Amino acid sequence: MTQTSITRSWVASANGHADFPLQNLPLGVFSIDGSLPHSGVAIGEHIFDLHAALDAGLFEGVAKAAVEATLGGQLNAFFELGREARVALRERLLELFAEGSSLRGKIEAQGTKLLPLAADCTMHLPAKINDYTDFYVGIEHAQNVGKLFRPDNPLLPNYKYVPIGYHGRASTIRPSGTDVRRPKGQTLPAGQSEPVFGPCARLDYELELGIWIGQGNDMGDSIAIGDAADHIAGFCLLNDWSARDIQAWEYQPLGPFLSKSFITSISPWVVTAEALEPFRRAQPARPQGDPQPLPYLLDKRDQAAGGFDIELEVLLTTEAMREQHLPAHRLTLSNTQHMYWTVAQMVAHHSVNGCQLQAGDLFGSGTLSGPENGQFGSLLEITEGGKKPIELASGEVRKFLEDGDEIILRGRCRREGFASIGFGECRGKVLAAR
Amino acid sequence: MTQTSITRSWVASANGHADFPLQNLPLGVFSIDGSLPHSGVAIGEHIFDLHAALDAGLFEGVAKAAVEATLGGQLNAFFELGREARVALRERLLELFAEGSSLRGKIEAQGTKLLPLAADCTMHLPAKINDYTDFYVGIEHAQNVGKLFRPDNPLLPNYKYVPIGYHGRASTIRPSGTDVRRPKGQTLPAGQSEPVFGPCARLDYELELGIWIGQGNDMGDSIAIGDAADHIAGFCLLNDWSARDIQAWEYQPLGPFLSKSFITSISPWVVTAEALEPFRRAQPARPQGDPQPLPYLLDKRDQAAGGFDIELEVLLTTEAMREQHLPAHRLTLSNTQHMYWTVAQMVAHHSVNGCQLQAGDLFGSGTLSGPENGQFGSLLEITEGGKKPIELASGEVRKFLEDGDEIILRGRCRREGFASIGFGECRGKVLAAR
Repeated sequence: MTQTSITRSWVASANGHADFPLQNLPLGVFSIDGSLPHSGVAIGEHIFDLHAALDAGLFEGVAKAAVEATLGGQLNAFFELGREARVALRERLLELFAEGSSLRGKIEAQGTKLLPLAADCTMHLPAKINDYTDFYVGIEHAQNVGKLFRPDNPLLPNYKYVPIGYHGRASTIRPSGTDVRRPKGQTLPAGQSEPVFGPCARLDYELELGIWIGQGNDMGDSIAIGDAADHIAGFCLLNDWSARDIQAWEYQPLGPFLSKSFITSISPWVVTAEALEPFRRAQPARPQGDPQPLPYLLDKRDQAAGGFDIELEVLLTTEAMREQHLPAHRLTLSNTQHMYWTVAQMVAHHSVNGCQLQAGDLFGSGTLSGPENGQFGSLLEITEGGKKPIELASGEVRKFLEDGDEIILRGRCRREGFASIGFGECRGKVLAAR
Repeated sequence: MTQTSITRSWVASANGHADFPLQNLPLGVFSIDGSLPHSGVAIGEHIFDLHAALDAGLFEGVAKAAVEATLGGQLNAFFELGREARVALRERLLELFAEGSSLRGKIEAQGTKLLPLAADCTMHLPAKINDYTDFYVGIEHAQNVGKLFRPDNPLLPNYKYVPIGYHGRASTIRPSGTDVRRPKGQTLPAGQSEPVFGPCARLDYELELGIWIGQGNDMGDSIAIGDAADHIAGFCLLNDWSARDIQAWEYQPLGPFLSKSFITSISPWVVTAEALEPFRRAQPARPQGDPQPLPYLLDKRDQAAGGFDIELEVLLTTEAMREQHLPAHRLTLSNTQHMYWTVAQMVAHHSVNGCQLQAGDLFGSGTLSGPENGQFGSLLEITEGGKKPIELASGEVRKFLEDGDEIILRGRCRREGFASIGFGECRGKVLAAR
């Protein structure tokens, strides 16, 4: 029973659902009214409570073991089980929810197990994040930002050899919907030699794909590029909120620090590699004539199908826009095809020195901009560092984000002959500095 | 009952012990022959098993609650309790082990509670490290390294305003004694434009002070400089092993990554702020005429006594030296007085943007070199990047570390009229690349 052979569900809202049709089945962790967090699966406008379903005896064998590993409010142990458990659970969920399923009655008899997604459910981080690494694989972003500083030579010499990444702050990763307190910090006013302290004046978003690590490796071992896909548990959207003025002053010589660590937002649903399978494509952004990846980053299968075709969108609303009921302003329409390195290459690179990866580690892709206007994944690129403000339907202008602004990330996969699937939203609203 | 009023212990090996006299009483987590990890206190040549002592009814009130928080093999919950619990435990331990203590009989009746430190005890990481941040507050190191690249202008403009730091990898922090597998990675051979892949050829150590975070803060809140000392649980030694050739090629534009993340070694005993109290000194490394710290980094008490006088030493042995029974070669003799920023300033800075700190987070100080030959805290500085090899008594020379080399860090506090205390060792031996 495969994704293409089952197309419709008896859960009516799933059929044609923009994010969560039967073909997606992403996993997450939720709670209702302060109850203990349960694991669940999004289907249409509902959450299927995996704890309750387990108690009702709906799982057996490997699928049952998979669900048991989701108990406790964190998916780390489930991620650690790897692909076999994930696939067994998916197959069972497809059986349970397929149109005409003989199990429909058994599920519906347990009235509490399909909960309304939008109503009272609070989504949590799906896993305990031990370590968070932010990569820089969006080559158009690297070029756009590089051009601001080095017009003639925007890419550094290592870019096409090294999947550049750096360690991020794990403690401040939060699920969609968490407000974003404007950070304070040191900034250097233009033309001055001494910094001042105060609220960030150049608050920005960054549009990224998040990657959840599944099975880890022991310290001292490396994950071969050909095995790397087996170590990825799933995907989410990630907003790498950035304080550009703090960043400019602090980042030499050791990289961004407080300019990023105040919060990172992620979409709470883990979209699996299996759900994304129809939307794989050749590793896209490496043009002919570019250097061949070094052998530890080179794998035929990865070159042929290591990329993804995921449409990524960023929307902005301001307080005034919301009061006037104006539609959200689209800031970005981009795609994961702008990744210069694949997720397998990120995993192989990260572990090639013996660095230990663990189930529940999170990677960010880096900002995924396209080359054109309308495709830029940050205000830094859109407004050229504040020089070209954008105009909104409310009559307001924006160089960077102001208090009350809300940023919404969306991700969607479309392909002729396949159901579209999506990631749900990654939202965050800016609050004034304390 | 204070540190100065009790000077001798009935535990004979504690009196005059180089590291662990009665005045120190550092906490750690140990196990014997694969048993479950217990918390313990180092005293002389022994470990006092806190679990067993709790069972024997040796603690009451706040001290009892403190010990209960150390159960489970990780000190995070104990760190979270903060200063009051730490002080209550310390006071009780001083009572238990003071010369002439009426409780000696009760402790000795429980024969298993004073274990030989050196024999069968395996030391573990004392806490689950959620996030690890490496600072760069050793100003002499920053100048020494800066000179290699910018002889006329070694310090970057932000150095005297910003306690520079960056996120490190938490998953590969290991206790003293863990072997160091030589990492592999990309390096750019001199004069070439394309990198090669292979074992690191410029493996180095970095001598640092480690700082354990106690009580944390909520995301969005900041820890005021005047309160920062209350958020520090203790201290250790830290070796920030570094692959210089990998670092040189990868670190632009986002900082060091795989050149550091293969392993970081720490000494396993948590030396408390209370034990270090007699060795506090004025914030030492900021000369007259330097810019005043911004108000969020400025506190009178911190300026007056925020520094430490801790002597730091690095020793090297090679396989040949060990075979010939030659004494270890001293590479470094330095001191924490070369910190430009205090640990309170690090805490205040790290959280000023609302970044959440959590009990069990670890900070590294950055390399603590002095300005003179013999005081440099890395081979990069000692050999000027490999240009001036060092000669060893075995007749060998070293530009960087070779397989079989062992690095040993030591830290010691000395002050007239006070018992010396130390940190124990932080050791690591280099293994050949896989």
